[in-house]
Amino acid sequence: MRSMSLLREITPKLKGFCVSAQDILDRCAGQIMAEIEQGLEKHYKEVLNVSSADSHRMGLKPITFARQVLAACFYPSLLNDESIPLDARERAQRLLGECEGGSIGSYTAERGIKKIQASICKFITKRDGVVSDPENVYITNGSQASLIIVLKLLVQSEGSLKTGVLTPVPSHSTFSLAVAAQGGLVVPYYLCEEQGWAVQLEELRRALHTARGQCNPTVLYVINPGSPTGHVQSKDSIAEVIRFAAEERLFLMVDEGHQDNVYGKGIEFYSYRRVLNEMGPPFSSTVELASINSISKSVIGECGLRGGYLELVNLDPLVIPYIYRFISMNGCASLSGQITVDVMVDPPQPTQPSYELYTQEVQSIKSTIKNNAQKTLELLSGLPGISCQPVNGGIFAFPRLHLSQSAIKHAKEKQLEPDLLYCLLLLEDEGLCVGAGCVHGQKEGTYHIRISLATQEETMKDVLQRLKSFHLRFIKEFP
Amino acid sequence: MRSMSLLREITPKLKGFCVSAQDILDRCAGQIMAEIEQGLEKHYKEVLNVSSADSHRMGLKPITFARQVLAACFYPSLLNDESIPLDARERAQRLLGECEGGSIGSYTAERGIKKIQASICKFITKRDGVVSDPENVYITNGSQASLIIVLKLLVQSEGSLKTGVLTPVPSHSTFSLAVAAQGGLVVPYYLCEEQGWAVQLEELRRALHTARGQCNPTVLYVINPGSPTGHVQSKDSIAEVIRFAAEERLFLMVDEGHQDNVYGKGIEFYSYRRVLNEMGPPFSSTVELASINSISKSVIGECGLRGGYLELVNLDPLVIPYIYRFISMNGCASLSGQITVDVMVDPPQPTQPSYELYTQEVQSIKSTIKNNAQKTLELLSGLPGISCQPVNGGIFAFPRLHLSQSAIKHAKEKQLEPDLLYCLLLLEDEGLCVGAGCVHGQKEGTYHIRISLATQEETMKDVLQRLKSFHLRFIKEFP
Repeated sequence: MRSMSLLREITPKLKGFCVSAQDILDRCAGQIMAEIEQGLEKHYKEVLNVSSADSHRMGLKPITFARQVLAACFYPSLLNDESIPLDARERAQRLLGECEGGSIGSYTAERGIKKIQASICKFITKRDGVVSDPENVYITNGSQASLIIVLKLLVQSEGSLKTGVLTPVPSHSTFSLAVAAQGGLVVPYYLCEEQGWAVQLEELRRALHTARGQCNPTVLYVINPGSPTGHVQSKDSIAEVIRFAAEERLFLMVDEGHQDNVYGKGIEFYSYRRVLNEMGPPFSSTVELASINSISKSVIGECGLRGGYLELVNLDPLVIPYIYRFISMNGCASLSGQITVDVMVDPPQPTQPSYELYTQEVQSIKSTIKNNAQKTLELLSGLPGISCQPVNGGIFAFPRLHLSQSAIKHAKEKQLEPDLLYCLLLLEDEGLCVGAGCVHGQKEGTYHIRISLATQEETMKDVLQRLKSFHLRFIKEFP
Repeated sequence: MRSMSLLREITPKLKGFCVSAQDILDRCAGQIMAEIEQGLEKHYKEVLNVSSADSHRMGLKPITFARQVLAACFYPSLLNDESIPLDARERAQRLLGECEGGSIGSYTAERGIKKIQASICKFITKRDGVVSDPENVYITNGSQASLIIVLKLLVQSEGSLKTGVLTPVPSHSTFSLAVAAQGGLVVPYYLCEEQGWAVQLEELRRALHTARGQCNPTVLYVINPGSPTGHVQSKDSIAEVIRFAAEERLFLMVDEGHQDNVYGKGIEFYSYRRVLNEMGPPFSSTVELASINSISKSVIGECGLRGGYLELVNLDPLVIPYIYRFISMNGCASLSGQITVDVMVDPPQPTQPSYELYTQEVQSIKSTIKNNAQKTLELLSGLPGISCQPVNGGIFAFPRLHLSQSAIKHAKEKQLEPDLLYCLLLLEDEGLCVGAGCVHGQKEGTYHIRISLATQEETMKDVLQRLKSFHLRFIKEFP
């Protein structure tokens, strides 16, 4: 019999997947909550967790229209229930008509329900003023699923040099894991904090040229609106990145999940698709682009339903049938996600009964996030030892901690990243869980925290109050 | 500027993902349906598609209790709607209580909602008489997602020899794609048709020993109850396979998705988990096993909701944290899938208001499939040039076509696999779409078709009538 398990032998493969700072924070938050439940006295009643992007968890409400459509799709008896508005029932009826056997329990085509693909294209066409082809649209289980599909297509698993993926720092921690899991290499490019976390051409060049020789960099990953930075790229900045991708023959992979949530004064969202088209040939007809959107990052905030879509632009028509088949390996995306995508790209219209409530709910979420961003920046600007760049979109603030040498020394003694130590103490002292910058990546010697703004305004007040109390004590303790 | 797209350069990676016989059939079926819609006269009114395992598409109905729980979770106003039975509403209430912020729009833990994990373990413990630990249970987006997770863990992407995965023939076509996509090599072992598609030890040995040297075979994949074969393994057969895996140091990966649908006379389902445990040490404490179950393959038949679970047994505790993290890359499974898993493993109890309807619906689906199997076997046994092994479980019959030399010659002239030609002619002549054996794998020189039994009995009558008419003409045409 064997003496050692098979999986232990392949541990090298899993090595990158060690316990992260976020796991440590989550575990610690869970422990404190358990203590509170057991009656242990703390000076706070509950843990507030604003470390991740989960708006419903932190009290934002689902969009009623989306949930009514979903409920009626799941339980068609509701199609005759007049307590649900007619347009929601009609939408459900129409969507069920697109499902095989009239049931959302059937598989759909691998790339999703055709009618929803068409709605997505209509949405893109309206947004960008350029026709979008349903053949290029893939409905997926969300943005991470979309990213993995694109990485699977692009990352070479054979050959002497690994495929390099230019990746912004800071970024999503799960993205680096996905690159590693596909056998690719993350090539970090640093966003310029001093310029509000802008993408800088010279930094892209530096990253690319440093990487060449060590790997084969062929993919450029961009997050716009930025996450966790809150930066929103200008049209010019996007054009510059596109030109760079064209010159250097890079495949552009753009996460545009926060596109419906841009609130900086005078700031507008431009899609890469739109700018690419406006640049005209040869760019508009050659630069390969994957654009990603999702129901989790949208103000609709349905993280648990797992849904999104992917548009592939300028791909060689000869490879498309292979891509279809490649994607078919996973089967279609969850129907609840697909239906929510339909609602996201095709909301109720002014003449419809659900229009008013839908608009009101969406506006309320948007204004909540905008107000939370403003309140956060106001508070932070008045505190010593912490600073924050403008937040123009998305749902995070990513302020910088200007930690003292004594704080850094204390962290090193504890064998913890200094920002993780800060987060752990904040959690312990005030029951407030924020994300640690080290999870998302940051320039060496800089430290940050990540705060989700997708929470009720009342809760945000409490969050900021706890942060302030702790921070002032912390900088006093580590002067 | 580039002259050639990036993806065309990496086409070698996608080469395995060419258009399959199933794609050809689907396209052809779509074309005929479009012709009918355009008013083109055929002697049949509609295409009947029994080529794949999608019960709702072919008219089987969703389980009401599951849909009621789902609807109330999506739209909590229904928690007070007395037209929905109390136990469904209470279940929804309880599940919402397990969701962050009380919304199924929140992310859950990566491995799923703890309470549902506990229900799965209770179900396994009751089924097998052996305690199942929630720490080993992963709620996923379905069986294909579970298989991919296990393959990702086990298939080595580096090293001179590829990881070999012993794979039954016939099998699911998407499984081979998944192995290839992870960089592994499919090592076929042939199920013994003459013995009702049984797993044979000598064939496993032959496959393994042939593979050694060409690859590094470390995984043994089994489907029980068999799909598309309808074979159900006996306890002794399972014990034999487990002993073989132990001796040869193979990781057992078992798809047990059809476990609740076994109907052969005197035939009982045994899980690998149960037999492993009953074998005692050293087997019970060392053989590594992944057991997979899903809501698509269960009689609940919710393919579109994408849900299932995976239990990992005897894995080294040291690697578990790495696996958790590895799985976290994809985020949690869709909530609609998770909730349906809960209903599948914890159905209404005799004292509850939904018990009667639930039981009746499940029984009706089971008896429909059983009757369809029987009717199919009866018909086929009376036809020349076709034969079918007993179907004891699952939702497919996989009859063998004994094609004449003239039929085979005709297919070769058309550059088609003979069974695909049969399927295409059947589709064209009778509007009946069955699956082609070549998609699922078969011994060279043998030809099969796959028929889904998960359809209404009335429809099945029509299916069999069409098959009979065509088959008799076909063997007359190609004697």
